[in-house]
Order: sequence, then structure tokens, then C-alpha cells
Amino acid sequence: MCPAATPADDIADDSARAPANHGYTADKAKLHTRLRRIEGQVRGLQRMIDEDTYCIDVLTQISAVNSALQSVALAMLDDHLHHCVAGAIANGGEDAAAKIDEASAAIKRLVRS
Amino acid sequence: MCPAATPADDIADDSARAPANHGYTADKAKLHTRLRRIEGQVRGLQRMIDEDTYCIDVLTQISAVNSALQSVALAMLDDHLHHCVAGAIANGGEDAAAKIDEASAAIKRLVRS
Amino acid sequence: MCPAATPADDIADDSARAPANHGYTADKAKLHTRLRRIEGQVRGLQRMIDEDTYCIDVLTQISAVNSALQSVALAMLDDHLHHCVAGAIANGGEDAAAKIDEASAAIKRLVRS
Amino acid sequence: MCPAATPADDIADDSARAPANHGYTADKAKLHTRLRRIEGQVRGLQRMIDEDTYCIDVLTQISAVNSALQSVALAMLDDHLHHCVAGAIANGGEDAAAKIDEASAAIKRLVRS
Repeated sequence: MCPAATPADDIADDSARAPANHGYTADKAKLHTRLRRIEGQVRGLQRMIDEDTYCIDVLTQISAVNSALQSVALAMLDDHLHHCVAGAIANGGEDAAAKIDEASAAIKRLVRS
Repeated sequence: MCPAATPADDIADDSARAPANHGYTADKAKLHTRLRRIEGQVRGLQRMIDEDTYCIDVLTQISAVNSALQSVALAMLDDHLHHCVAGAIANGGEDAAAKIDEASAAIKRLVRS
Repeated sequence: MCPAATPADDIADDSARAPANHGYTADKAKLHTRLRRIEGQVRGLQRMIDEDTYCIDVLTQISAVNSALQSVALAMLDDHLHHCVAGAIANGGEDAAAKIDEASAAIKRLVRS
Repeated sequence: MCPAATPADDIADDSARAPANHGYTADKAKLHTRLRRIEGQVRGLQRMIDEDTYCIDVLTQISAVNSALQSVALAMLDDHLHHCVAGAIANGGEDAAAKIDEASAAIKRLVRS
């Protein structure tokens, strides 16, 4: 089962009792760790600015943070396809095509951002 | 004057007395604020994971953080070209070509990240 | 049915008789037209170089071609998810997970290119 | 000397007699060759569509074309900074800041495309 999209959150009662089984449930701790490390990198960027670090060195670090964030996004998207999207298709509901459209829109945002 | 690149930091004594005049000196407070907001967004991403937010909504937020980081990078690069690179060229030193090569390499990392 | 990946091309005989039904079959003419237009844009870039067009104007045009190519890629990927990947999942074969891994790898290449 | 931007083309008469010395003049033949190769790759993409090539293989090739185009753009931008922008700065004209703004805008389009 995938968590419902925020607008259609009528499964809230169930998920209060049984924890939701997301695309990323298994990797939750790992994703959290990666995002915490990225948060530390962003704090490091602020420190670099405070300490008048050379512009190019700051830019190199920004590129590194961007790559790290993209890797998190790609990992989440992969999980989402394997679980949420595959689940919707396997269930055969009319929901499946909408799930794919939604994933495509997210991919487009990633490619363009 | 631009801050020296980290490897050639023999102007450290001078900069202890007179604060360095970077490409981004004028915008330092503004850059700091933007990076602090991005740090908050990354913490928000961790909260989204903790609260089992729907994958696609997390991905949308990651794309937003990426765009915000890129905007910071583009602003810093613009400052760097206007001050550090332009300064090196105006000084006519042999340093100028190296500064441009260095900026080009940073642009390449940004385009690829 | 989706066309087999090039390494596992043992369905060649069948496809000689019955044309393959790809993700992009319905949009084949449209994709062809878009790629032909992009080909024209690339020829236009060569002409711009020949005519000593101002660098920045050439760069603007390269960005436009890149965006056009990305749009084609995103349209193909969307078709691929709706047809090839969804088909593999609906068939329930063990092929499904591999198809998703393959799509994820393609998405990664698009995001990084 | 750099070619004038298209709107301010009042040096047309001169350039008819003496060929313009662009950022990319020295590499003109090389850039042309690279763009011709990219044109061939785009024609190859059309052929792949005609021959019902597997979607993922077409996507891989699109990513390759995008990377090739970006490399051309980065090479042109590097030339532009070394020649046109550096020239404007060395001349000390008020034109210099405008040239840098223009280059920054082009970089932004490249990063975002």
C-alpha cells in the first residue's frame, strides 16, 4: 500500500492503526540519514560564506549538495515506481494511469530543476 | 580584491586586518538568509519522511530545494564574474586566463550537477 | 507488446510479420516530426557558426534545442511507463522489476545529462 | 574583437571586408564538425523511431545527444568569456558589465535547460 496523495487522504484512519507501507518505508532510516547529511552540507555552505571562502570553492560545494539531493530524489522515485506505481497497476484499478501521469510530471520537474 | 583560492592562502595575514572584498561581500547577508531558508527546507524534507508524506510530494519539494540552490549558485557566479574575474582581467595579470578557466570549470559542474 | 531490448532480440521473426506495438507506436509520426525539427535546428546552429553569429545568440539556440530534445525524451519515457512498464507489471512476470530498474536508470541518465 | 550582438549590427560593413574575430573563430571548423556529428545523431534518432527501436535505447541516445550539445555550449561559453567578455573588460568600456550580465543570463539558460 502506498500513502494516499495529500488531497485524497481518506485512508487516514487506517494508517493511524497500521503504519503505512510506502515506497520508501524500508529505506526510511537511510533516507533520513542522507537528508541529515545534506542539511549539514547546507549549514557548511553558510559557514563558508561567513568565513569568506573563495567563491569557486563555495560553488563546488553547492554542486555537490545538488548532486546529493538528486540522488535522494532518484532513489525515492525508484522506490515509488517499484511500490506505489507497480501496486496501482497490479491492482488494475483505473488509478494506475493517473499514478503514471503523476510520476511523469515529477520526473519532468526533476529533469528541469 | 577577491579572496585567494584555498591552496594559495598566503594573504591570510592581510585579510585578518582588512576584511576581504569578495565577489559576494555585498550580498553576504542575503546569501546567508537564502541558505538558511534552504537548510529549513531540507529539515522539512526529513519531517516529510518521518510523517510518511506521499513520495510525489517529497519529490516536488526536493525539486524546489534544487532550484533554490541553483539560484544561489547562479547569483554567486554572477558576482564572481563581475568582481573576481573582471578584477583579474582589469589588472592585466597573467592570472586572468586562469580565473576564466576556473570559472568555466565551475559552470560545467553546475550544468552537469 | 513492447519491443524487446536489443540484446534479447529473439522475437525478430515475429516482429517481421506483425509490427511491434511500442510505447510510442501511436505517436511515431509525431515524434518523427519533432526530431526532424530538432535536426533542422542543429543545421541552423551550423549556419549560425558559418555566419559568425554572436556567441550568446548561438548559446540561446543551443539551450532551445536541448529543451526540445528533453521534451521528446520525457514524452517517450511517459509512453514507455504507460505501455511497456505497465504491461510488464500487469503480466505479473518476473520481468516487471527489471523493467522498472531499467526505466529508473534511464531517468537517472536524463536527469544527469 | 567580438561580433556585435544581432540588434546592434552597425559594424556590418567592416565585417564584410575583414572577417569578424569571434570568441570561437579559432575553433570554428571544430565546432562545425561537432555540430555536424550531432546532426547525424539526431537523424539516427529518427531512424531508431522508424525501426521501432526499444524505447530505453532511444532514451539513452537522446541523453548522449544532450551531453554532446552541452559540451559544445560549454566550449563556446568558455571561448566567449576568454575573448568577448575579457576584451570588453580590458577595453574598460561601460560595456563590460553588460557583457557579464549577458553571459550570466546565458549560463542560467544552460543550467535550466
